[in-house]
Amino acid sequence: MKKVCVAASLTAEQKKRLEAACPDYEFVYGTDEDAQIVVGYLPIKKLKQFKNLEWLQTLSAGVERYIAKGVLNEGVILTNASGVHTREVAEHLLAVLLMMVKKLHIYRDDQKLHVWRDEGKVKEITKLKVTILGLGDIGSYLARQLKALGIHVIGVKRRMIEKPDYVDELYTNEELDKAIGDVDAVISLLPGNRENVGLFTVDTFRKMRSDCIFINAGRGNLCDEETLETVLDEKIIAGIAADVYPKEPLPAESPLWDHENLVVTPHAAGGYHLDSAMETLIDLCIENLNRYHEGKPLKNLISERE
Amino acid sequence: MKKVCVAASLTAEQKKRLEAACPDYEFVYGTDEDAQIVVGYLPIKKLKQFKNLEWLQTLSAGVERYIAKGVLNEGVILTNASGVHTREVAEHLLAVLLMMVKKLHIYRDDQKLHVWRDEGKVKEITKLKVTILGLGDIGSYLARQLKALGIHVIGVKRRMIEKPDYVDELYTNEELDKAIGDVDAVISLLPGNRENVGLFTVDTFRKMRSDCIFINAGRGNLCDEETLETVLDEKIIAGIAADVYPKEPLPAESPLWDHENLVVTPHAAGGYHLDSAMETLIDLCIENLNRYHEGKPLKNLISERE
Repeated sequence: MKKVCVAASLTAEQKKRLEAACPDYEFVYGTDEDAQIVVGYLPIKKLKQFKNLEWLQTLSAGVERYIAKGVLNEGVILTNASGVHTREVAEHLLAVLLMMVKKLHIYRDDQKLHVWRDEGKVKEITKLKVTILGLGDIGSYLARQLKALGIHVIGVKRRMIEKPDYVDELYTNEELDKAIGDVDAVISLLPGNRENVGLFTVDTFRKMRSDCIFINAGRGNLCDEETLETVLDEKIIAGIAADVYPKEPLPAESPLWDHENLVVTPHAAGGYHLDSAMETLIDLCIENLNRYHEGKPLKNLISERE
Repeated sequence: MKKVCVAASLTAEQKKRLEAACPDYEFVYGTDEDAQIVVGYLPIKKLKQFKNLEWLQTLSAGVERYIAKGVLNEGVILTNASGVHTREVAEHLLAVLLMMVKKLHIYRDDQKLHVWRDEGKVKEITKLKVTILGLGDIGSYLARQLKALGIHVIGVKRRMIEKPDYVDELYTNEELDKAIGDVDAVISLLPGNRENVGLFTVDTFRKMRSDCIFINAGRGNLCDEETLETVLDEKIIAGIAADVYPKEPLPAESPLWDHENLVVTPHAAGGYHLDSAMETLIDLCIENLNRYHEGKPLKNLISERE
């Protein structure tokens, strides 16, 4: 009987559900270095002590740290949690977008100073044009929510496909400039692939309208801190909201924190902040554990290695 | 030719449009005490100097100050701007609701302190249950937006009607306790009628769930400052967002400002923050001025007087 080491915060009920649905495995909560399977997050150093490791199921969609050279032995299977965070990330992004459009972050700052001040005109939600970079699970879910509110949605995908119903316009990565040039907001869900590292330069932001806002919930290496600083200092666009940063946690001494037109959230868009996210992860684990036992191909398999 | 005194900030284009559509009137921008018609906001003292006043078209939906005894002479017609602020108020409320549900006001506070801290679980938008008090133009527009996002909407109306499609449940004012007892948010759009003054007591809030939030964009006299203080201090519910206060502006020395679980906006939900609001007001003025000239009944007529 193979041993599954679960390194994630599960309730008693969730443990029960997992165990009942996977009778062919032994489950250990906490670390057990004899385990053949790990579900959850462990420091790389710890992970390397699992000498029998056959398969790692991560809690996150991003797997940069695991595909790096020398982290996982050859032959160790890697599956990610893509799809698990769909709703929480999409909903966080929707809330951040509306907050910034309605200047609620500015009113919050005023409140702290006991200042009752009209901060002027805001934009109409139903008249917004929003570009989403990355139309995976999260991007397409977000697109549907935005469209439900009457927002014009432009999608950007790596490869051209037939335009899905949930976007009004569709472009490929090569047409990025066209897709971001005349919109009220650009939302990035781009992963941390090598091709995306440093993709957004000051010049990229100059291609947006000065009243545009940029929201990043993909990966923090999309643009470096200096670029963010310049864009904010020179007010090249109206504002930035970022849940991810080149260096996380964002260092306390970073000058970024103090920008009124930057909204900082601490990589909290995903991270199992919705109860339903952990339930979805358990669904995925149950499905994959049973597939593994039966020798069937796993879902969310990552074949990429550096 | 009757003279219309316009006491509102119109662009040159908006003035042109108004004048072109109402050739039977002379328009004056700023105060002209000879005018028979006033469109806009003037201090009561000033308004009393208009000896020929026949008709006042307000900029706001609330008309408490104008229907008070002795303000308008008998026979002076009063029309309000009901319907003009529909989108701006509804959209503001939607943004505030999502901000609070996703704890973005707390993350903003953390940002000010350079603190990168996970603030824990948040609620799922699509699983929210929200009660709207007042199903006029704003309430019904908001209900539609919420439903578009998958939110369960409960409406409360003065009189029972057939349940409209844009709410999932409908109650009358008499059933208030039932309508607010098991929801994630209660949003008030109740006007400042005498029957609503002080309607929300500490006991009312005790009938809500402790994880409920209350949002007020109706009138500030719905509950007094002491009630707000008690509810926030004792954490009777999870949070309050208020755009209106018993005394406005909220005095700088008010202890309310410093409550983390209160979101203050300065009566800014309406107030012509959307360009489209002023355009809608002009549409209304054009319609009403032409009706008045032809002796037809006016839209948005307020017959109530104290």
